Parts: sequence; C-alpha cells; structure tokens
Amino acid sequence: MKDIELQTVSKIDADLLKNFCCDVLLKLGITKESADIVSDHLVWADLMGISSHGVTRLGIYVKRIQTGLTNAKPNIHIVRESPSMAVLDGDNGLGQVVGVKAVELAIEKANKVGVGVVAVRHTTHFGCAGYYALKAIEKDMIGVVMSNAPSTMAPWGARVPYLGTNPIAFGIPTREFPPILLDMATSIVARGKIILAAKEGKTIPEGWAVDPEGEFTTDPESALKGAVLPFGGPKGSGIALMIDILSGILSGAEFGSHIGSLYDDFSKPQNVGNFIMVFNIENFCPVNEFKERVELMRQEIKSLPKAKGVDEILLPGELEFRRYVENKRSGIQLGPEVIKELKEVGKLLSVNFPLEGEN
Amino acid sequence: MKDIELQTVSKIDADLLKNFCCDVLLKLGITKESADIVSDHLVWADLMGISSHGVTRLGIYVKRIQTGLTNAKPNIHIVRESPSMAVLDGDNGLGQVVGVKAVELAIEKANKVGVGVVAVRHTTHFGCAGYYALKAIEKDMIGVVMSNAPSTMAPWGARVPYLGTNPIAFGIPTREFPPILLDMATSIVARGKIILAAKEGKTIPEGWAVDPEGEFTTDPESALKGAVLPFGGPKGSGIALMIDILSGILSGAEFGSHIGSLYDDFSKPQNVGNFIMVFNIENFCPVNEFKERVELMRQEIKSLPKAKGVDEILLPGELEFRRYVENKRSGIQLGPEVIKELKEVGKLLSVNFPLEGEN
Repeated sequence: MKDIELQTVSKIDADLLKNFCCDVLLKLGITKESADIVSDHLVWADLMGISSHGVTRLGIYVKRIQTGLTNAKPNIHIVRESPSMAVLDGDNGLGQVVGVKAVELAIEKANKVGVGVVAVRHTTHFGCAGYYALKAIEKDMIGVVMSNAPSTMAPWGARVPYLGTNPIAFGIPTREFPPILLDMATSIVARGKIILAAKEGKTIPEGWAVDPEGEFTTDPESALKGAVLPFGGPKGSGIALMIDILSGILSGAEFGSHIGSLYDDFSKPQNVGNFIMVFNIENFCPVNEFKERVELMRQEIKSLPKAKGVDEILLPGELEFRRYVENKRSGIQLGPEVIKELKEVGKLLSVNFPLEGEN
Repeated sequence: MKDIELQTVSKIDADLLKNFCCDVLLKLGITKESADIVSDHLVWADLMGISSHGVTRLGIYVKRIQTGLTNAKPNIHIVRESPSMAVLDGDNGLGQVVGVKAVELAIEKANKVGVGVVAVRHTTHFGCAGYYALKAIEKDMIGVVMSNAPSTMAPWGARVPYLGTNPIAFGIPTREFPPILLDMATSIVARGKIILAAKEGKTIPEGWAVDPEGEFTTDPESALKGAVLPFGGPKGSGIALMIDILSGILSGAEFGSHIGSLYDDFSKPQNVGNFIMVFNIENFCPVNEFKERVELMRQEIKSLPKAKGVDEILLPGELEFRRYVENKRSGIQLGPEVIKELKEVGKLLSVNFPLEGEN
C-alpha cells in the first residue's frame, strides 16, 4: 500500500491527503464540488510550504460547520452587479468555496470588459490569497486578491489589536514556470505561523508581536493573546487599513474588530470580506509581449549583484513553487501536532487518516 | 504688497507661488490648462508638507521641456479601450498633465460601469500619487494610483538599484474632513527626501540607503549614487515589483532599469508608466453607509490605547491635511536652496520670483 511506504519517510502523498480532507468535509453534508475546492486549497498550501494555511485548518473549519456558524450549503449570490464589478454575498459558506466563485466571476467579467472586480461579504477564512490569484494566472490574467481578517494586529501607533493581518496577493502570468506570485500577510509575519509555533511548542522571534500589555514577546501563546505588528511600520499598517476598507467596508462585510474570530468566537459567523480584481492582459497589450517583457525583467533581477549573505535573488513565489514541485514528488511532511489533530478530526467523522500507523 | 509682508516671516503665499510656477511654465509654450495643473500639483505638495515633491521639482521639469525630452504640447491619446479600462499614451507630456487626464478618464469609466482602470505609457515624473487619488475622492470614489520610477532601489536580495521607489496611493472619501489618503513610496523613504537632504546639506538616517559598494551610508550624495532600500524587506520589495509590472509592463511603458532618469539622463524621454484604478462606491453600496462605516472605523482606531511614545494615532494623510490647512493660512516655508533654485529658474525665463527681496 502506498501509505505504508510513505509512513517510513513520515511524509504523506498529496492526493491521499486531499482525499482524506475531502472525505471529512463530505461527512458534513457539503457538496462534492465544494469539498474538492477546500481540500485542493488546503493541500495546495501544504505543497507550497505554506503549512500555516494548509490542512492544519481542517479541524477548525469542521468545528465551525458543525456549530452551523459556517454554512455547509450556502446560497452564494450576487447582490449588485455591472459589466465590470459585482458584490457577492457568500452566505457564510466556507471561504474557499466563496473565494473560488468570486474569482471565477471576476475572470468572467475581465474576459468581457478587461477588468473584473468582485467585493465579497459574508464569507469566512479563505486561506491563501495566492490560490485565487493563481486562478487568474491560469487564464493569462493578472489577479489581485485581498481579504480582511479577525482583529489581531495593532495599527501603527496603537498597542492593541484592531486590524487583521489582512493578506494581499498578486498573480502575474509568465511564459516560463513558475509564475510570479506575491502572497503576503500585512503583518510582519503571517499569524498562522504563530499559531503553528504554538501548536508545535516553539518560540517566535522578537519583533513579531506584543503581549497583552504591549511588550515584545517570543512566546507564541502570549503573542496570540496580544497583537502582531504590521510589516514596514506605518506603510504596512496603512496598506492593511486599505485592504480592510476595500474588503470589509466597501463590500458590506464586517471590518476591524467587528470580524468574528475563527478560533475564539462561536457566537456569530465571521463575516469576513474579500476584494478581488482581475485584469485581462489581452485588453492592455498582446499577451506574448507582456510575457516576454516579464521574462526579461525576471532575468535582469535574478542576475543583479547580490547583497551580502544572499545566495540567490528570488522572485515572489519562486521558493514556494519549488517546494510545490518537490512536495508533489516526495510527499508532504506534516508536524506531529497536525497529524494528531487530523487523526482526531478523522476519528470524529469516521474517516481513516492515511498515516494511521504513524506515531 | 502682500509678498513684502510674507518676506518678514520667510513664508510665501500658496497662490503667489502657484502663479509664479504657472508663469514659468507658460513661457515654455505649454497650454494654460496644463500650466495650471502642474502648478496646482507642485504647490499642493508643498501645502501638504511633501516638499520633496513640491516646487523643488520645477527646475528639472523646465530643463527637460527645454531639451524637448518632455513634450510641451503632447498629443495624449487612448491606445486601447473598453467600457472599464483604457491604455493611455501620454506622448511624453508632463506627468501631472497626463496623470490628471488619466484619472479623469478612470473616473468617467467608473461613473458608467463602477470601475475604471487606466494604464499609462510614455509619461514622465508625475509627482505625488495622492494628488490623483484625491481627484477620485472629490467624486465620492475610491482612487488607487501607482507609478513606476527610474531605477534607484535595490530589489530584496540585491545590492544595486533596479526598481524605482514606485509609489502607491489610496484615496478614501469620508464624511468628515480630512479624507483618508495613503500616499507612499515603496522605499523606506521617498527618494525626494534624500534629494532634499542633499540640496540642504543634511545627513540621512542609517538604514535608508546603501552607497555604490552596497554599504549603509548617511551621506545623501553617496545614497543617491548607490541604492535606496525597499520598505518592509521582501514584502515591500514585492509590492514595488508588482507596481512596476502593472505600471510599466502591462501599460507598455518602460520598467526596471530601462526607465529614463529624471535628473541624470538627457538622452531619451523617461517613458514612465502609471496604473490608476477608480472604484465608484455607489456601485458597491450606498455612499452614506460607506462613509458612516469609515467614520466609525476612524473613531475606533483613534481611540485605541496608544503605543509607548505615541501622542496621537494618526490615519494616513491626517498629518498632511493638517499641514495643508496650516500652510494655506500661514504660507509655505521654502528652504534657502529651493528659493535660490526658483529664482534661477525665474531669471532664466524672465519671471519675477515673488520673494525677490529675500536673502
């Protein structure tokens, strides 16, 4: 059996992992299409090495669906629309299901009029913004994807959380693999990395976060109770604010501290907002010309004299796509805490975890 | 005479300064409308306290028009168009003239279909991105304005310049004054501030820039020969790259190190690119509702517990609009080097500088 061989190297095949997630989600009464989307997303994140947004999130998604706060069968619908934009109501469905619908709608509009903008309300944690930008890349379009998030980050000048770590992703199609994919939280570090450190009992570097008293901390548990800090000082804080205004206020979702916490608030749906833009390159210039110029830029940047201690100048997403190729081949390495968690989720819903013999 | 009174406080009235700039530009054969736009822009920057992008730029604009590299009477024209987007060719006109045309076109499209995106090629240094975002604000729309810029910034991992300090601005209309206006370079600091420090013989803080050998420097002259650094490390570098791809590559303008230097390259036009997006709030949600929610957000952020050493939590643009009101009332303080430069420009084109008696 394939999984027995995998156990010996403590890695799990991506397809096996995806099937497990899918089987778990199907037990909750969500459609096959939706289960496929969410599973594909979670495993994609792990393949890219963004394990903070990978299968470690399955447990909390399950829990919120079971409480009814995340809608297993949402009625995702358009509230307002023009040829180039829409406001989409996610009906508190799983963020990945809503996010894929939203980017597909933006792509459809960009295909017709060159630009498609979709503002999303009533959605939930949607994982990696880059996943949706990649959907645009696959159509030779540029995708820009933003989301607000529950309040965990102190705006510049404050010492308590108000903003989320509001992510933004830009996806740029290229002639050669890999595409350029900038996918970043607007915090110094993705909060998911702090959550993972807490789960794995590791410390975090100083400067990432403050404790509830506003003091720097290296303890991930204290950091999660305190506030993470924006990247790049007032500028990063400003960008996080703009993401919240576009994703939260313009869309009609919640914003700032009003967004429901994924992990800690079981009193209401999250009501996260997204803001997704797709630009159809063809409307602006010939696609081949665009790609040729991007390759020239890539080649020029990669051959610049390197800063001290730098082995290779990397473009956004380059490292992640390399990991993707490697992990797709060798399997995904999961931490023991994540494996334990997945086994528990599996047991709860009577789905066998494919590394059952492990630890 | 009004300017005699002003001399005693070494400040100059905004309207007098604007008239001076306008008179200078008119001597170069540009239209009254264009001269008004550029003058208004430069003085607006000084009123906002963004003196690095104010009248200190007049001299170089004049010089480039005189050499014919900036087109005094450009044929600004649409190259490609859909209901929601356009590619605009600025015909190497003054960046402010092209920029205002571009944002007006984006506003017109947003007015019709909710979203207007204009990519601009063949333009020149356009000053403050925030000025154009403010044009959208005035129509109750959200403006997002980007530009690439000549190569002065090292991408993350490199030690020599390739990217520009590519600015981005977001303008958010509000019920109460001031609007929210995030206007930032993607470098740790606007290169204009290093230019101004050099002009005024001041040093710059360590960490802003490296010299041509890749070492940190506090000497603005060495910094201008070396490279400024991106804000927020790899994330800020990534955003600067995305701005270049949208403004430069997608528009058909130059990008990276191919963009002509404003100050040092008199062999070719700059061929800067811009990327301007306007979102008509009304298409997404009722404007009053949007503004009410923004005011709630502003009030909540401003009343958060403050970080150590912080007197007041400021929203993007708040400080600048305060300076605007103050400078509008009391006049604009110009440094002696800038006054000297303006007098020289005035003498060259036989226009009296209104502080003729000064120093």
